[in-house]
Amino acid sequence: MSEGERIEDYRKRCIISSRRDPKLEKIDPSYRGGHASEASARAETLHYLHMLSHQQIMLYASARQALLIVLQGLDTSGKDGTIRHVLKAFNPQGTAVTAFNVPTAEERAHDFLWRIHARAPAHGWIGIFNRSHYEDVLVPVVHAQIDRRTCERRYEAIRAFEELLARNGTHIVKLYLHISKEEQLARFGARLDDPSRNWKISEADYTERAYWDHYRSAYERAIAATTTKKAPWYVVPADHKWFRNLAVSQIIAETLKALRLGYPKAKVDIADVRRRYHAASAAR
Amino acid sequence: MSEGERIEDYRKRCIISSRRDPKLEKIDPSYRGGHASEASARAETLHYLHMLSHQQIMLYASARQALLIVLQGLDTSGKDGTIRHVLKAFNPQGTAVTAFNVPTAEERAHDFLWRIHARAPAHGWIGIFNRSHYEDVLVPVVHAQIDRRTCERRYEAIRAFEELLARNGTHIVKLYLHISKEEQLARFGARLDDPSRNWKISEADYTERAYWDHYRSAYERAIAATTTKKAPWYVVPADHKWFRNLAVSQIIAETLKALRLGYPKAKVDIADVRRRYHAASAAR
Repeated sequence: MSEGERIEDYRKRCIISSRRDPKLEKIDPSYRGGHASEASARAETLHYLHMLSHQQIMLYASARQALLIVLQGLDTSGKDGTIRHVLKAFNPQGTAVTAFNVPTAEERAHDFLWRIHARAPAHGWIGIFNRSHYEDVLVPVVHAQIDRRTCERRYEAIRAFEELLARNGTHIVKLYLHISKEEQLARFGARLDDPSRNWKISEADYTERAYWDHYRSAYERAIAATTTKKAPWYVVPADHKWFRNLAVSQIIAETLKALRLGYPKAKVDIADVRRRYHAASAAR
Repeated sequence: MSEGERIEDYRKRCIISSRRDPKLEKIDPSYRGGHASEASARAETLHYLHMLSHQQIMLYASARQALLIVLQGLDTSGKDGTIRHVLKAFNPQGTAVTAFNVPTAEERAHDFLWRIHARAPAHGWIGIFNRSHYEDVLVPVVHAQIDRRTCERRYEAIRAFEELLARNGTHIVKLYLHISKEEQLARFGARLDDPSRNWKISEADYTERAYWDHYRSAYERAIAATTTKKAPWYVVPADHKWFRNLAVSQIIAETLKALRLGYPKAKVDIADVRRRYHAASAAR
């Protein structure tokens, strides 16, 4: 596929660029970006997966910048699937996935960014957060465990933390996978019907679903408060898994492309090494 | 491909099963396992890559056991290539690669297993070590920085450490990628000729090559001293990259298969969840 065949720029479409509330209910979760079906999107998605694989090699070789991908979204929104179908394009050597679950006792004994900071990607690496520090401005807000002022302070801490990472060469892409309440129910149903996925079912699935609107507004506020030029939020329509894969792969591939990565120069005197190579060849 | 079409059992062929010296010079690095060419091995390799991907999902879901893959071999033996071409079959969520380079000041201030232990895979995970604690019974032996007694103590510490991991449910596969001196020279030459790989060239490439025989005997001793039932060494002929990929993928896939992994049962009462699902469906 040539560049010209790109149907739409999803970075532009999905980015939340200002600090105004993103109003999630006005964003269609079943958006398909002009593609009628999965089959029509396939070539474009493969093109971006190939780009991801290629760009990652240069990021790793250069080891001067890092990429941090934050995946957020309600249950069944497709965080795991995005990793399996899109981010698997990256070489595991240079890619670290962290799933942030309920904090351990040791983690709870620190500030909420402590365990997050420890998993920030080193230069050359791609860090993938499956859930993240954003859980700490969602769950406790929905369940009224922190007040507004504490929440505002956490937003502030998050902005300062992400600014610190960005200044050290970490490019940050935050993805909110946006699904409809109907699609979530359908996916819960699919988990029930597939014995190989029964283990993913949790008691919380239905209890948290009752707070759907609360979660939506907590997300709207968190996204509005923390979308910045250096660490933007993208709201990705995710009712169609194939469209989600297309949009996520394009957004990340274009982000990496914009870094104009190349292969680093040799650290040694190549002419000298070449002489030694010829000497070794002659000697064998 | 059906199971019956397997040409040879590489676990059996490559394993170093006793503590006798493996005599590396008697193992042909250009062995091709009855395959005439890369093309003829492709279907078998793809079959095992598919198995790896499938087994990993169950290992992760069950979260009761772990897999540790240790990759060792001289420069250019194909450790990076094995990760890129074989171990990429694993989902990055559940796979952690650690490349152990020259220890940092903090790491040097601890025992040699300290930094290794910290990267041992958790239950459900696959840990891949690109170089490992075995460097500490190779480089210092070749350069006479430790005496024989210290080296024996390190072997002992390694055996006890790996036994500890194994007892906690970590299955260990140690792979020595076996190349010939001629093939190494050819690969150094290829790096020189490919600008996108010049950055991989290091001054040490030629200086360490002078110690070829010393490294071989240090490897022989280390392998003999640390191959155990629970943490066996495999010597994989690696002059042909495609054969290396086939053998490594088969060895790991069959190791995982022998664990008889399955999908875990649901943690919740499925009948109860199903009732709630129908209630939610009716209410929408």
